[in-house]
Amino acid sequence: MTAATGFAASDLFQVLRDGKPRTRSELIDITGLSRTTIGSRIDSLVESGMVTALADAISTGGRPSARVAFNPQARVVAAADLGATHATLALTDLAAQVIVEVHTAMEIAAGPQVVLDWLTKTISQLLIEAGRSPSELIAIGIGVPGPVEHTTGRPSNPPIMPGWDNFDIPGHVQRSYPVPVLVDNDVNIMALGERAMSWPAADHLMFLKVATGIGSGIISGGVLQRGAEGIAGDIGHISISRGAGTVCRCGNTGCLEAVAGGPAIAAELRREGIEASNGNDVVDLVREGNVRALQIVRQAGRDIGEVLNMCVSIVNPSVIVVGGSLAQIGEQLIAGIREVVYARSMPLATRQLSIVQSQTGPESAVIGASLIAIEHALAPENMT
Amino acid sequence: MTAATGFAASDLFQVLRDGKPRTRSELIDITGLSRTTIGSRIDSLVESGMVTALADAISTGGRPSARVAFNPQARVVAAADLGATHATLALTDLAAQVIVEVHTAMEIAAGPQVVLDWLTKTISQLLIEAGRSPSELIAIGIGVPGPVEHTTGRPSNPPIMPGWDNFDIPGHVQRSYPVPVLVDNDVNIMALGERAMSWPAADHLMFLKVATGIGSGIISGGVLQRGAEGIAGDIGHISISRGAGTVCRCGNTGCLEAVAGGPAIAAELRREGIEASNGNDVVDLVREGNVRALQIVRQAGRDIGEVLNMCVSIVNPSVIVVGGSLAQIGEQLIAGIREVVYARSMPLATRQLSIVQSQTGPESAVIGASLIAIEHALAPENMT
Repeated sequence: MTAATGFAASDLFQVLRDGKPRTRSELIDITGLSRTTIGSRIDSLVESGMVTALADAISTGGRPSARVAFNPQARVVAAADLGATHATLALTDLAAQVIVEVHTAMEIAAGPQVVLDWLTKTISQLLIEAGRSPSELIAIGIGVPGPVEHTTGRPSNPPIMPGWDNFDIPGHVQRSYPVPVLVDNDVNIMALGERAMSWPAADHLMFLKVATGIGSGIISGGVLQRGAEGIAGDIGHISISRGAGTVCRCGNTGCLEAVAGGPAIAAELRREGIEASNGNDVVDLVREGNVRALQIVRQAGRDIGEVLNMCVSIVNPSVIVVGGSLAQIGEQLIAGIREVVYARSMPLATRQLSIVQSQTGPESAVIGASLIAIEHALAPENMT
Repeated sequence: MTAATGFAASDLFQVLRDGKPRTRSELIDITGLSRTTIGSRIDSLVESGMVTALADAISTGGRPSARVAFNPQARVVAAADLGATHATLALTDLAAQVIVEVHTAMEIAAGPQVVLDWLTKTISQLLIEAGRSPSELIAIGIGVPGPVEHTTGRPSNPPIMPGWDNFDIPGHVQRSYPVPVLVDNDVNIMALGERAMSWPAADHLMFLKVATGIGSGIISGGVLQRGAEGIAGDIGHISISRGAGTVCRCGNTGCLEAVAGGPAIAAELRREGIEASNGNDVVDLVREGNVRALQIVRQAGRDIGEVLNMCVSIVNPSVIVVGGSLAQIGEQLIAGIREVVYARSMPLATRQLSIVQSQTGPESAVIGASLIAIEHALAPENMT
């Protein structure tokens, strides 16, 4: 059979995105476009700054065979990680490299007006600090601690974000910056950031966040999976065997996060007369070597393992990365998880499965938010 | 920002795959390719038969503006559904329309030599019957009742396929037909077939097979998810609350299929003195209105619902299609599933979730096997 082969015309810029410099002749060979078309497209890309013409020593006798390359510094994106009680905001270049960043205490419960006005005001300050003009900002990525309808960027019944339900985050931010605004769940952006920074070759990666709540972001086949309603990976409300009778903030009983989340572990310690008001106290107690804290955290790991065991059967990842504030505890939590997953899962599902602690920490969220903004802004259909 | 737009050069044929006739001028507009390039590529596609030049009444004065269109009858693929005790083999065109088909009793336990020799011999017969030459066969798709390493087409520790573990199915079949041979798990191809035939707009679909075993095929973001080891969706060995103490053929205890699969339901009926040797007997008893059979099937539905409830949180599908021989029972099984899923899942996950019986029956497997063969053969990278 003979048929058309070649490369996408729209991929002239996409070809260059890997950063490798190429001559016009190489680009003609790769794309199959005519010399005239290549020439005019390169001219407009160079004019826009997105592509840089490199001075080249080698001349072919006539016109020098100048090479061109993607210039990730041509534009910037803003990337925000809005947590329950903190906010991180960064400007990055188009390779998701942080240029400037601020971190501050911020209650998401203060509501969208307060939080998003801080966001837009701080973007202005960061642009000034970085010496970039507002016209260089081409997209904004925002992670929030709750479910988001991805197509509209509106939170959907977020349990710990009072006042945010169905709030038009992109619409509000675009009053200040009329650029694409991408909003996603915080665990989803952490999964993307973690993969980009630590596991670039892992096409099947699950990122688990263990903190006040428990949730996960799932990358399958190299693609972040959001599901029909944007809540794929929302595993904190799966019921577990040890949860019978425990009431969860969601109204159901027996949910994983009502048993193994930070507040649940702290409550269990208090019942034994050990002072612990939240997950941070639990982390401190484990670090101090408190034996009961160690035991309870290990049991929480087993509870989480019970649910991850199902995830392993359903999603079949090659890497599970455990992050979130309670993951700072380190091996005790993960040991409990591994104990159950490796004992219980089908051998084929675990023969190459790694269960590891997050190496990137909170930074992964900002990188992930930057990545969703860049991916959108530089997608072929948006490069007009 | 200004940048390259346009359409993939390699997509000249991909553009035509929707079947809509187009003129050369239209194809130039869509692809951005030069008239010369379009002309030579169309010539070779017409020569190969993959594209047909349509006689067109309208002339622009000079050369008539003849339209060209994809010709799905240009080639054929063979599509096989190999079950535990049956085999279906079809020739289809490149739109997955069945041309000829055979269905026969066949024990997969007879081993790969016997089954695959039947397969290749029967492909020859079907080609003759359809009046097509072996050179017109461009790919073969095969579904088998066990886990498959998708990249190599080798079964991986399949529990009900003695002699098939790590057998090189493509290599064996290619001795007779040197074309691409794609092998996948039967539930995966059923998910693809079910979606193509009944839910073409559903990008997040889960196909559940309830028969001797219990398994699922998961389509997320429009793509079949196989996972790192090709066993994504293998939910039959997730442990459930009612399963404590029940030994499964996998060696673990409490697995879903050890409690809610056809043989488990039959065994439960026998313990009450009701004669039932397998899942088919269960279907018959339910159809006869046996009240204990109805009750036990409904409970099996609830057990399955307990696991599907987790799938809903993890995958967030918009449609769950229930198929397999026990789904013929109809509403009793699905009522039990719905009872648990709708009672237990997060409201956002179920607000638009449909749980329905398969409408396509066994046909979906052959259509799905045809689709994986066609998708591979017509993918841009393979159209050389």
